[in-house]
Amino acid sequence: MMVEKEKAKYWVGFDLGGTKMLAKIYDQDFKAVGSERTKTRGHEGAKAGLERIERTIRKALESAKIDSSQLAGIGVGCPGPLDLKRGVILDAPNLGWENVPVRKTLTTAFGCPAHIANDVDVGVYGEHRFGAAKGARTSIGIFPGTGIGGGCVYEGKIIRGRTSSCMEIGHIQVMPEGPRCGCGRRGCLEAVASRLAISARSAMAAYRGKAPHLLKQSGTDLANIRSGALAASIKAGDEVVEIIVREAARHIGRAAASLVNLMAPDVLVLGGGLVEAMPELFVSEVKLTAERRVLSSFVDSFKVVAAKLGDDAGVLGAAAWAHQQEQEEE
Amino acid sequence: MMVEKEKAKYWVGFDLGGTKMLAKIYDQDFKAVGSERTKTRGHEGAKAGLERIERTIRKALESAKIDSSQLAGIGVGCPGPLDLKRGVILDAPNLGWENVPVRKTLTTAFGCPAHIANDVDVGVYGEHRFGAAKGARTSIGIFPGTGIGGGCVYEGKIIRGRTSSCMEIGHIQVMPEGPRCGCGRRGCLEAVASRLAISARSAMAAYRGKAPHLLKQSGTDLANIRSGALAASIKAGDEVVEIIVREAARHIGRAAASLVNLMAPDVLVLGGGLVEAMPELFVSEVKLTAERRVLSSFVDSFKVVAAKLGDDAGVLGAAAWAHQQEQEEE
Repeated sequence: MMVEKEKAKYWVGFDLGGTKMLAKIYDQDFKAVGSERTKTRGHEGAKAGLERIERTIRKALESAKIDSSQLAGIGVGCPGPLDLKRGVILDAPNLGWENVPVRKTLTTAFGCPAHIANDVDVGVYGEHRFGAAKGARTSIGIFPGTGIGGGCVYEGKIIRGRTSSCMEIGHIQVMPEGPRCGCGRRGCLEAVASRLAISARSAMAAYRGKAPHLLKQSGTDLANIRSGALAASIKAGDEVVEIIVREAARHIGRAAASLVNLMAPDVLVLGGGLVEAMPELFVSEVKLTAERRVLSSFVDSFKVVAAKLGDDAGVLGAAAWAHQQEQEEE
Repeated sequence: MMVEKEKAKYWVGFDLGGTKMLAKIYDQDFKAVGSERTKTRGHEGAKAGLERIERTIRKALESAKIDSSQLAGIGVGCPGPLDLKRGVILDAPNLGWENVPVRKTLTTAFGCPAHIANDVDVGVYGEHRFGAAKGARTSIGIFPGTGIGGGCVYEGKIIRGRTSSCMEIGHIQVMPEGPRCGCGRRGCLEAVASRLAISARSAMAAYRGKAPHLLKQSGTDLANIRSGALAASIKAGDEVVEIIVREAARHIGRAAASLVNLMAPDVLVLGGGLVEAMPELFVSEVKLTAERRVLSSFVDSFKVVAAKLGDDAGVLGAAAWAHQQEQEEE
């Protein structure tokens, strides 16, 4: 029995993204010893997808020269909504998948425990355990992308609902009469401050001739106006784009103030491609706006920082969260 | 040592209110065995106040025929901001008290552990343990009064900051361009939906002759327009007052929707005098408004209920929270 336990000391962290999947193998100190990355190809269906996940993990194990019998557990960050207890992806619209039994498939394939969690939650957990929010009592992550993802780690645990994830920071209402959000309501944070919302406003500016550098680099197609292009156009002198991005950051700061008043976090972590491209702009605008709007007793109670771990936050967080869940069950 | 432990089995729950203080003595099953109530008289100063708190607890012990050596611990619900670790009231503007060492005073006086907590937090904890939210995994309480207090119990624990309470639900912004709040910002929930805000709007209606029953009963002085008067005027046919109260309840529903999206509570508990006077109106408006505004995956995930325990929620919650804190430290 002891031999078994000693052998089974590696953890898999897996990130199931809309376009790519990433598997990393970690030792007991959460040092990466192997990895594999591939395209998700969600359109090929959930069955092909599960096979792909399994194959990607096997390749990562090979790259680490580790046998699956040495695995202590697998953690998978997934797009939601999820059934966390059963380990099922209920509905992943970006992939076109429904009712996908990730946990059962991986447990059967690798003979070790598997846990799924919301992709943003494990990203925040990764930053909380190993990155920009290390040592915090309460960490809240805000990740503006196509939408705006959020997560909260409180006293070492991801805050979540009975069977689902929560912390839907993107749907804090910051503008009651604001533009319509993808969720059907008006003025949600992600309707005014996601990368998509910023890109749409910047495309309008480009079309009107107010953002010549952006127009030259990316045209007016939203799909081409990525974070890097926005950052480059600001650097090149497109003032209107800077105004648009700063305004979005201030909206995030408004939502952040509500989160501070509610949860009293020590650390707010900002992450995702948009923040990575312009970390100082986002950190300073969010901090200033939030400080002005929190109750006076919270003014000096929190830091705003940029995420440190990039793509590793999700895989590292997923592996460490699986480890933490197993420890709890012991 | 065992004799000592067996003897020390009673708990004190204490509610330090703006106008009155209430002490109750509980046995190990949290059955009340004695109580004492008196006026707070904050204006007499903090030193006199601490003596009063001690005297009130002694009288409650007398009424229960219990000696202070039989006390296992004391829990005190206090107006904030507090330093929870040191057990100090930092600033209680309603009482005019600053830096009041409640914990140390009571520990010295009664020779048992004492814990302080935010008054709303222990009220929500009381409802979570013994009242309307019993059995919930995540309970959120919303208590509209002079302001709007809030609290959250998550997996058996009060959510709080490193040294202070949090869940400042009254300062969720529901109207960015709304009326000025006591905190200095605009459009906070309590600026538009507290009993004070409702009373102010109702007083205007009364002054304009639109709420004749209210005018007759209470005049136009805010101090006289209490929850009971508002309920009575609606019952007597003051339609404008009903419109005002329902609108406030819908604002609370909007804030509740954000709380559901963030924390995925099983149960939202509405409490305080205003809700006690009109429980059905508040529960139905909040429920309907919140259901319309939460993300679709949360629609059937939460109940809205009226608090059950009245004034007992705070004292019972304070005693049980002290008990829970002591268990944790063991």
